[in-house]
Amino acid sequence: MEQGREGDIVLYTYWRSSAAYRVRIGLNLKGLAWEPRQVHLVRDGGEQRHASYRALNPQQLVPTLLHGGQVLTQSVAILEYLDEAFPDRPLLPGDAAGRARVRALAQLVACDIHPINNLRVMQYLEHTLQVPADERTRWTLHWMAEGLAAMETMLAGSGGTGTFCHGDGPGLADACLLPQLYNAHRFGLDLSAYPTLQRIEAACLALPAFDAARPESQADAA
Amino acid sequence: MEQGREGDIVLYTYWRSSAAYRVRIGLNLKGLAWEPRQVHLVRDGGEQRHASYRALNPQQLVPTLLHGGQVLTQSVAILEYLDEAFPDRPLLPGDAAGRARVRALAQLVACDIHPINNLRVMQYLEHTLQVPADERTRWTLHWMAEGLAAMETMLAGSGGTGTFCHGDGPGLADACLLPQLYNAHRFGLDLSAYPTLQRIEAACLALPAFDAARPESQADAA
Repeated sequence: MEQGREGDIVLYTYWRSSAAYRVRIGLNLKGLAWEPRQVHLVRDGGEQRHASYRALNPQQLVPTLLHGGQVLTQSVAILEYLDEAFPDRPLLPGDAAGRARVRALAQLVACDIHPINNLRVMQYLEHTLQVPADERTRWTLHWMAEGLAAMETMLAGSGGTGTFCHGDGPGLADACLLPQLYNAHRFGLDLSAYPTLQRIEAACLALPAFDAARPESQADAA
Repeated sequence: MEQGREGDIVLYTYWRSSAAYRVRIGLNLKGLAWEPRQVHLVRDGGEQRHASYRALNPQQLVPTLLHGGQVLTQSVAILEYLDEAFPDRPLLPGDAAGRARVRALAQLVACDIHPINNLRVMQYLEHTLQVPADERTRWTLHWMAEGLAAMETMLAGSGGTGTFCHGDGPGLADACLLPQLYNAHRFGLDLSAYPTLQRIEAACLALPAFDAARPESQADAA
Protein backbone atom coordinates (compact mmCIF):
# COMPACT_ATOMS: atom_id res chain seq x y z
CA MET A 1 0.00 0.00 0.00
CA GLU A 2 1.32 3.43 -0.96
CA GLN A 3 2.31 5.33 2.14
CA GLY A 4 2.01 8.97 1.04
CA ARG A 5 4.72 11.62 0.79
CA GLU A 6 6.73 12.79 3.81
CA GLY A 7 4.80 15.51 5.60
CA ASP A 8 1.45 14.55 4.15
CA ILE A 9 -1.22 13.17 6.44
CA VAL A 10 -3.15 10.16 5.20
CA LEU A 11 -6.04 8.69 7.18
CA TYR A 12 -7.39 5.22 6.54
CA THR A 13 -11.02 5.69 7.42
CA TYR A 14 -14.52 4.26 7.11
CA TRP A 15 -17.43 6.65 7.22
CA ARG A 16 -19.28 4.85 10.02
CA SER A 17 -16.27 3.91 12.15
CA SER A 18 -16.49 5.67 15.49
CA ALA A 19 -12.74 5.53 15.98
CA ALA A 20 -12.00 7.00 12.53
CA TYR A 21 -14.64 9.71 13.19
CA ARG A 22 -12.71 10.74 16.34
CA VAL A 23 -9.53 11.25 14.35
CA ARG A 24 -11.37 13.14 11.58
CA ILE A 25 -12.66 15.53 14.25
CA GLY A 26 -9.18 15.98 15.73
CA LEU A 27 -7.57 16.64 12.34
CA ASN A 28 -10.26 19.20 11.48
CA LEU A 29 -10.09 20.90 14.89
CA LYS A 30 -6.36 21.37 14.38
CA GLY A 31 -6.92 22.72 10.87
CA LEU A 32 -4.70 20.07 9.27
CA ALA A 33 -5.02 19.01 5.63
CA TRP A 34 -5.43 15.25 5.28
CA GLU A 35 -6.15 12.74 2.59
CA PRO A 36 -8.76 10.06 3.28
CA ARG A 37 -8.26 6.47 2.09
CA GLN A 38 -11.43 4.45 2.42
CA VAL A 39 -11.36 1.02 4.03
CA HIS A 40 -14.74 -0.64 3.58
CA LEU A 41 -15.37 -2.67 6.72
CA VAL A 42 -18.07 -4.91 5.26
CA ARG A 43 -17.50 -5.26 1.49
CA ASP A 44 -15.30 -8.15 0.22
CA GLY A 45 -15.21 -9.78 3.66
CA GLY A 46 -13.96 -6.51 5.13
CA GLU A 47 -11.13 -4.60 3.43
CA GLN A 48 -9.50 -4.18 6.86
CA ARG A 49 -8.66 -7.90 6.68
CA HIS A 50 -6.90 -7.67 3.30
CA ALA A 51 -3.14 -8.32 3.42
CA SER A 52 -2.21 -4.82 2.23
CA TYR A 53 -4.09 -3.17 5.10
CA ARG A 54 -3.09 -5.78 7.66
CA ALA A 55 0.54 -4.95 6.91
CA LEU A 56 -0.15 -1.40 8.11
CA ASN A 57 -2.45 -2.30 10.98
CA PRO A 58 -2.04 -5.83 12.39
CA GLN A 59 -5.19 -5.31 14.47
CA GLN A 60 -7.17 -5.01 11.23
CA LEU A 61 -9.09 -2.07 12.60
CA VAL A 62 -9.50 1.49 11.39
CA PRO A 63 -8.17 4.13 11.66
CA THR A 64 -4.53 4.11 10.66
CA LEU A 65 -2.74 7.40 10.13
CA LEU A 66 0.38 7.97 8.05
CA HIS A 67 2.58 10.95 8.77
CA GLY A 68 6.27 11.62 8.19
CA GLY A 69 7.01 8.02 7.29
CA GLN A 70 5.30 6.74 10.43
CA VAL A 71 2.35 4.38 10.62
CA LEU A 72 0.16 5.23 13.61
CA THR A 73 -2.67 3.14 15.04
CA GLN A 74 -5.24 3.45 17.86
CA SER A 75 -7.43 6.54 17.58
CA VAL A 76 -6.66 8.04 20.99
CA ALA A 77 -2.91 7.49 20.55
CA ILE A 78 -3.21 9.19 17.14
CA LEU A 79 -5.02 12.18 18.64
CA GLU A 80 -2.36 12.51 21.35
CA TYR A 81 0.32 12.30 18.64
CA LEU A 82 -1.34 15.03 16.58
CA ASP A 83 -1.49 17.21 19.68
CA GLU A 84 2.25 16.76 20.25
CA ALA A 85 3.32 17.05 16.60
CA PHE A 86 1.07 20.07 15.93
CA PRO A 87 0.80 21.99 19.21
CA ASP A 88 -1.44 24.76 17.81
CA ARG A 89 -5.15 24.50 18.74
CA PRO A 90 -4.51 21.94 21.51
CA LEU A 91 -6.88 19.04 22.08
CA LEU A 92 -5.73 18.66 25.69
CA PRO A 93 -5.53 21.32 28.41
CA GLY A 94 -2.17 22.49 29.74
CA ASP A 95 -2.44 21.30 33.37
CA ALA A 96 -1.90 17.72 34.53
CA ALA A 97 -5.20 17.58 36.42
CA GLY A 98 -7.16 18.87 33.45
CA ARG A 99 -5.39 16.50 31.10
CA ALA A 100 -6.19 13.58 33.41
CA ARG A 101 -9.83 14.59 33.45
CA VAL A 102 -10.05 14.87 29.66
CA ARG A 103 -8.23 11.56 29.17
CA ALA A 104 -10.53 9.81 31.63
CA LEU A 105 -13.61 11.06 29.77
CA ALA A 106 -12.10 10.04 26.44
CA GLN A 107 -11.20 6.58 27.74
CA LEU A 108 -14.61 6.08 29.28
CA VAL A 109 -15.87 6.08 25.69
CA ALA A 110 -12.84 4.59 23.94
CA CYS A 111 -12.30 1.73 26.42
CA ASP A 112 -15.59 1.07 28.13
CA ILE A 113 -18.36 1.75 25.62
CA HIS A 114 -17.21 1.55 22.04
CA PRO A 115 -15.10 -1.66 21.90
CA ILE A 116 -17.87 -3.76 23.45
CA ASN A 117 -20.27 -2.65 20.71
CA ASN A 118 -17.79 -2.67 17.85
CA LEU A 119 -18.46 -4.48 14.56
CA ARG A 120 -16.28 -7.52 15.24
CA VAL A 121 -17.94 -8.10 18.63
CA MET A 122 -21.42 -7.77 17.13
CA GLN A 123 -20.41 -10.24 14.41
CA TYR A 124 -19.20 -12.71 17.07
CA LEU A 125 -22.49 -12.37 18.97
CA GLU A 126 -24.43 -12.99 15.78
CA HIS A 127 -22.43 -15.70 14.04
CA THR A 128 -20.65 -17.57 16.83
CA LEU A 129 -23.07 -17.21 19.74
CA GLN A 130 -26.17 -16.93 17.54
CA VAL A 131 -27.65 -14.18 19.64
CA PRO A 132 -30.89 -12.94 17.99
CA ALA A 133 -31.10 -9.42 16.55
CA ASP A 134 -33.28 -7.93 19.30
CA GLU A 135 -30.95 -9.17 22.02
CA ARG A 136 -27.96 -7.80 20.13
CA THR A 137 -29.63 -4.41 19.99
CA ARG A 138 -30.35 -4.63 23.72
CA TRP A 139 -26.66 -5.41 24.29
CA THR A 140 -25.60 -2.33 22.32
CA LEU A 141 -28.04 -0.07 24.12
CA HIS A 142 -27.08 -1.50 27.53
CA TRP A 143 -23.38 -0.62 27.26
CA MET A 144 -24.10 2.76 25.73
CA ALA A 145 -26.60 3.68 28.43
CA GLU A 146 -24.33 2.52 31.24
CA GLY A 147 -21.33 4.44 29.92
CA LEU A 148 -23.18 7.60 28.92
CA ALA A 149 -24.96 7.75 32.29
CA ALA A 150 -21.57 7.74 34.04
CA MET A 151 -20.29 10.38 31.65
CA GLU A 152 -23.35 12.57 32.27
CA THR A 153 -22.75 12.30 36.04
CA MET A 154 -19.06 13.16 35.65
CA LEU A 155 -19.77 16.14 33.39
CA ALA A 156 -22.83 17.52 35.19
CA GLY A 157 -21.10 17.29 38.56
CA SER A 158 -17.87 19.07 37.64
CA GLY A 159 -16.89 22.72 37.47
CA GLY A 160 -14.43 21.67 34.74
CA THR A 161 -17.28 21.28 32.28
CA GLY A 162 -18.01 24.32 30.11
CA THR A 163 -19.53 24.76 26.68
CA PHE A 164 -17.64 21.58 25.86
CA CYS A 165 -16.53 18.59 27.95
CA HIS A 166 -13.63 20.58 29.38
CA GLY A 167 -13.93 24.34 29.44
CA ASP A 168 -15.07 26.43 26.51
CA GLY A 169 -12.93 24.93 23.75
CA PRO A 170 -13.49 21.56 22.07
CA GLY A 171 -10.93 18.81 22.54
CA LEU A 172 -10.11 15.14 22.96
CA ALA A 173 -13.10 14.25 25.13
CA ASP A 174 -15.53 15.87 22.69
CA ALA A 175 -13.84 14.08 19.77
CA CYS A 176 -14.65 10.79 21.53
CA LEU A 177 -18.12 11.72 22.76
CA LEU A 178 -19.60 12.88 19.47
CA PRO A 179 -19.06 9.62 17.51
CA GLN A 180 -20.50 7.71 20.46
CA LEU A 181 -23.61 9.90 20.40
CA TYR A 182 -23.86 9.32 16.65
CA ASN A 183 -24.02 5.59 17.44
CA ALA A 184 -26.56 6.24 20.18
CA HIS A 185 -28.86 8.02 17.71
CA ARG A 186 -28.32 5.28 15.15
CA PHE A 187 -29.52 2.63 17.60
CA GLY A 188 -32.38 4.76 18.92
CA LEU A 189 -31.09 5.27 22.47
CA ASP A 190 -33.23 7.72 24.43
CA LEU A 191 -30.85 10.55 25.32
CA SER A 192 -33.25 12.51 27.52
CA ALA A 193 -31.44 11.37 30.68
CA TYR A 194 -28.23 13.02 29.45
CA PRO A 195 -28.96 16.75 29.10
CA THR A 196 -25.32 17.76 29.48
CA LEU A 197 -24.23 15.39 26.72
CA GLN A 198 -26.98 16.70 24.45
CA ARG A 199 -25.99 20.31 25.13
CA ILE A 200 -22.32 19.55 24.32
CA GLU A 201 -23.33 17.63 21.21
CA ALA A 202 -25.25 20.65 19.90
CA ALA A 203 -22.30 22.96 20.63
CA CYS A 204 -19.92 20.63 18.76
CA LEU A 205 -22.12 20.08 15.72
CA ALA A 206 -22.40 23.86 15.30
CA LEU A 207 -18.65 23.89 14.52
CA PRO A 208 -17.48 23.23 10.93
CA ALA A 209 -14.69 20.91 12.20
CA PHE A 210 -17.25 18.51 13.67
CA ASP A 211 -19.75 18.93 10.87
CA ALA A 212 -17.19 18.02 8.19
CA ALA A 213 -16.14 14.93 10.18
CA ARG A 214 -19.66 13.46 10.42
CA PRO A 215 -20.22 10.07 8.81
CA GLU A 216 -22.77 11.51 6.39
CA SER A 217 -20.24 14.10 5.21
CA GLN A 218 -17.73 11.44 4.05
CA ALA A 219 -17.19 10.49 0.41
CA ASP A 220 -17.71 6.80 1.23
CA ALA A 221 -21.04 7.29 3.08
CA ALA A 222 -23.63 4.79 1.87
CA MET B 1 -15.44 7.81 51.87
CA GLU B 2 -12.32 9.33 53.40
CA GLN B 3 -10.19 10.88 50.70
CA GLY B 4 -6.67 10.80 52.21
CA ARG B 5 -4.38 13.69 53.09
CA GLU B 6 -3.08 16.14 50.49
CA GLY B 7 0.02 14.71 48.82
CA ASP B 8 -0.75 11.13 49.74
CA ILE B 9 -1.55 8.68 46.99
CA VAL B 10 -4.48 6.36 47.61
CA LEU B 11 -5.39 3.63 45.14
CA TYR B 12 -8.76 1.90 45.16
CA THR B 13 -7.82 -1.54 43.95
CA TYR B 14 -8.90 -5.16 43.66
CA TRP B 15 -6.21 -7.80 43.49
CA ARG B 16 -7.47 -9.43 40.29
CA SER B 17 -8.47 -6.28 38.44
CA SER B 18 -6.32 -5.91 35.36
CA ALA B 19 -6.79 -2.16 35.28
CA ALA B 20 -5.81 -1.74 38.96
CA TYR B 21 -2.81 -4.01 38.35
CA ARG B 22 -1.61 -1.62 35.60
CA VAL B 23 -1.65 1.31 38.00
CA ARG B 24 0.08 -0.69 40.75
CA ILE B 25 2.89 -1.40 38.28
CA GLY B 26 3.15 2.26 37.31
CA LEU B 27 3.23 3.48 40.91
CA ASN B 28 5.93 0.94 41.74
CA LEU B 29 8.00 1.70 38.64
CA LYS B 30 8.00 5.35 39.64
CA GLY B 31 8.98 4.47 43.20
CA LEU B 32 5.96 6.22 44.69
CA ALA B 33 4.52 5.35 48.10
CA TRP B 34 0.82 4.58 47.90
CA GLU B 35 -1.91 3.30 50.15
CA PRO B 36 -4.20 0.55 48.84
CA ARG B 37 -7.94 0.58 49.59
CA GLN B 38 -9.57 -2.67 48.65
CA VAL B 39 -12.79 -2.71 46.64
CA HIS B 40 -14.12 -6.26 46.48
CA LEU B 41 -15.69 -6.66 43.04
CA VAL B 42 -17.81 -9.70 43.90
CA ARG B 43 -18.66 -9.64 47.62
CA ASP B 44 -21.88 -7.89 48.74
CA GLY B 45 -23.10 -7.53 45.16
CA GLY B 46 -19.81 -5.80 44.31
CA GLU B 47 -18.42 -3.06 46.53
CA GLN B 48 -17.78 -0.98 43.39
CA ARG B 49 -21.55 -0.53 43.19
CA HIS B 50 -21.91 0.82 46.74
CA ALA B 51 -22.92 4.47 46.98
CA SER B 52 -19.71 5.56 48.72
CA TYR B 53 -17.55 4.23 45.88
CA ARG B 54 -19.95 5.31 43.15
CA ALA B 55 -19.58 8.87 44.42
CA LEU B 56 -15.85 8.66 43.61
CA ASN B 57 -16.19 6.68 40.40
CA PRO B 58 -19.55 6.96 38.61
CA GLN B 59 -18.48 4.17 36.26
CA GLN B 60 -18.34 1.80 39.25
CA LEU B 61 -15.06 0.36 38.05
CA VAL B 62 -11.64 0.10 39.67
CA PRO B 63 -9.15 1.68 39.88
CA THR B 64 -9.67 5.15 41.30
CA LEU B 65 -6.67 7.15 42.44
CA LEU B 66 -6.66 10.00 44.93
CA HIS B 67 -3.87 12.54 44.86
CA GLY B 68 -3.65 16.16 45.95
CA GLY B 69 -7.40 16.44 46.47
CA GLN B 70 -8.12 15.06 43.02
CA VAL B 71 -10.12 11.97 42.18
CA LEU B 72 -8.71 10.26 39.09
CA THR B 73 -10.31 7.46 37.08
CA GLN B 74 -9.41 5.30 34.05
CA SER B 75 -6.15 3.39 34.47
CA VAL B 76 -4.35 4.72 31.39
CA ALA B 77 -5.34 8.31 32.18
CA ILE B 78 -4.04 7.73 35.72
CA LEU B 79 -0.71 6.41 34.43
CA GLU B 80 -0.34 9.41 32.11
CA TYR B 81 -1.14 11.68 35.06
CA LEU B 82 1.49 10.02 37.25
CA ASP B 83 4.03 10.48 34.45
CA GLU B 84 3.25 14.20 34.28
CA ALA B 85 3.00 14.81 38.04
CA PHE B 86 6.14 12.77 38.83
CA PRO B 87 8.46 13.09 35.80
CA ASP B 88 11.26 10.94 37.26
CA ARG B 89 11.49 7.40 35.88
CA PRO B 90 9.23 8.15 32.90
CA LEU B 91 6.66 5.62 31.70
CA LEU B 92 6.58 7.19 28.23
CA PRO B 93 9.52 7.98 25.91
CA GLY B 94 10.49 11.57 25.13
CA ASP B 95 9.75 11.66 21.39
CA ALA B 96 6.29 12.02 19.85
CA ALA B 97 6.72 8.99 17.57
CA GLY B 98 7.84 6.78 20.46
CA ARG B 99 5.03 8.04 22.65
CA ALA B 100 2.50 7.29 19.91
CA ARG B 101 3.90 3.77 19.58
CA VAL B 102 3.74 3.10 23.32
CA ARG B 103 0.25 4.53 23.60
CA ALA B 104 -0.97 2.42 20.66
CA LEU B 105 0.38 -0.74 22.31
CA ALA B 106 -1.18 0.23 25.63
CA GLN B 107 -4.53 0.98 24.02
CA LEU B 108 -4.49 -2.24 22.03
CA VAL B 109 -4.79 -3.94 25.42
CA ALA B 110 -6.78 -1.31 27.30
CA CYS B 111 -9.37 -0.71 24.57
CA ASP B 112 -9.48 -3.79 22.40
CA ILE B 113 -8.82 -6.79 24.65
CA HIS B 114 -9.55 -6.13 28.27
CA PRO B 115 -12.96 -4.36 28.25
CA ILE B 116 -14.56 -7.07 26.12
CA ASN B 117 -13.54 -9.70 28.70
CA ASN B 118 -14.15 -7.62 31.79
CA LEU B 119 -16.24 -8.88 34.71
CA ARG B 120 -19.40 -6.88 33.90
CA VAL B 121 -19.40 -8.15 30.31
CA MET B 122 -18.88 -11.75 31.44
CA GLN B 123 -21.75 -11.31 33.91
CA TYR B 124 -24.00 -10.01 31.13
CA LEU B 125 -23.11 -12.98 28.91
CA GLU B 126 -23.88 -15.36 31.75
CA HIS B 127 -26.97 -13.85 33.35
CA THR B 128 -28.67 -11.90 30.56
CA LEU B 129 -27.74 -13.89 27.46
CA GLN B 130 -27.40 -17.22 29.29
CA VAL B 131 -24.27 -18.16 27.41
CA PRO B 132 -22.91 -21.46 28.82
CA ALA B 133 -19.58 -21.55 30.67
CA ASP B 134 -17.56 -23.21 27.90
CA GLU B 135 -18.72 -20.68 25.32
CA ARG B 136 -17.90 -17.83 27.72
CA THR B 137 -14.37 -19.20 28.09
CA ARG B 138 -14.08 -19.45 24.30
CA TRP B 139 -15.17 -15.80 24.08
CA THR B 140 -12.47 -14.73 26.53
CA LEU B 141 -9.77 -16.71 24.75
CA HIS B 142 -10.88 -15.44 21.33
CA TRP B 143 -10.44 -11.75 22.15
CA MET B 144 -7.20 -12.36 24.00
CA ALA B 145 -5.72 -14.41 21.16
CA GLU B 146 -6.78 -11.90 18.51
CA GLY B 147 -5.33 -8.94 20.41
CA LEU B 148 -2.15 -10.62 21.58
CA ALA B 149 -1.42 -11.93 18.07
CA ALA B 150 -1.59 -8.36 16.75
CA MET B 151 0.62 -7.16 19.60
CA GLU B 152 3.17 -9.92 18.91
CA THR B 153 3.28 -8.85 15.24
CA MET B 154 3.70 -5.19 16.16
CA LEU B 155 6.46 -5.92 18.68
CA ALA B 156 8.35 -8.58 16.73
CA GLY B 157 8.34 -6.47 13.57
CA SER B 158 9.64 -3.23 15.08
CA GLY B 159 13.12 -1.96 15.83
CA GLY B 160 11.53 0.02 18.67
CA THR B 161 11.14 -3.14 20.72
CA GLY B 162 13.97 -3.87 23.15
CA THR B 163 14.18 -5.76 26.41
CA PHE B 164 10.73 -4.28 27.04
CA CYS B 165 7.91 -3.18 24.73
CA HIS B 166 9.74 0.03 23.90
CA GLY B 167 13.50 0.07 24.29
CA ASP B 168 15.33 -1.21 27.32
CA GLY B 169 13.30 0.41 30.08
CA PRO B 170 9.85 -0.68 31.25
CA GLY B 171 6.91 1.66 30.73
CA LEU B 172 3.25 2.20 29.95
CA ALA B 173 2.93 -0.56 27.34
CA ASP B 174 4.51 -3.12 29.68
CA ALA B 175 2.22 -1.98 32.50
CA CYS B 176 -0.76 -2.85 30.27
CA LEU B 177 0.68 -6.03 28.77
CA LEU B 178 1.60 -7.82 32.00
CA PRO B 179 -1.89 -7.83 33.55
CA GLN B 180 -3.30 -9.05 30.23
CA LEU B 181 -0.82 -11.92 30.21
CA TYR B 182 -1.81 -12.71 33.81
CA ASN B 183 -5.38 -13.10 32.53
CA ALA B 184 -4.15 -15.20 29.61
CA HIS B 185 -2.44 -17.62 32.01
CA ARG B 186 -5.50 -17.66 34.24
CA PHE B 187 -7.71 -18.77 31.35
CA GLY B 188 -5.16 -21.23 29.99
CA LEU B 189 -4.39 -19.46 26.72
CA ASP B 190 -1.51 -21.12 24.85
CA LEU B 191 1.15 -18.40 24.61
CA SER B 192 3.61 -20.31 22.43
CA ALA B 193 2.65 -18.22 19.39
CA TYR B 194 3.79 -15.06 21.19
CA PRO B 195 7.53 -15.49 21.90
CA THR B 196 8.19 -11.74 22.09
CA LEU B 197 5.41 -11.24 24.63
CA GLN B 198 6.73 -14.13 26.71
CA ARG B 199 10.26 -12.73 26.63
CA ILE B 200 9.03 -9.29 27.74
CA GLU B 201 6.89 -10.86 30.45
CA ALA B 202 9.92 -12.65 31.92
CA ALA B 203 11.98 -9.44 31.83
CA CYS B 204 9.20 -7.54 33.63
CA LEU B 205 8.53 -10.13 36.31
CA ALA B 206 12.24 -10.13 37.20
CA LEU B 207 11.78 -6.53 38.39
CA PRO B 208 10.60 -5.89 41.97
CA ALA B 209 8.17 -3.19 40.74
CA PHE B 210 6.23 -5.73 38.69
CA ASP B 211 6.57 -8.53 41.22
CA ALA B 212 5.10 -6.43 44.03
CA ALA B 213 2.17 -5.40 41.81
CA ARG B 214 1.13 -8.97 40.96
CA PRO B 215 -2.37 -10.04 42.05
CA GLU B 216 -0.97 -12.75 44.34
CA SER B 217 1.19 -10.15 46.14
CA GLN B 218 -1.83 -8.08 47.21
CA ALA B 219 -3.25 -8.09 50.73
CA ASP B 220 -6.74 -8.85 49.39
CA ALA B 221 -5.68 -11.85 47.25
CA ALA B 222 -8.04 -14.78 47.79
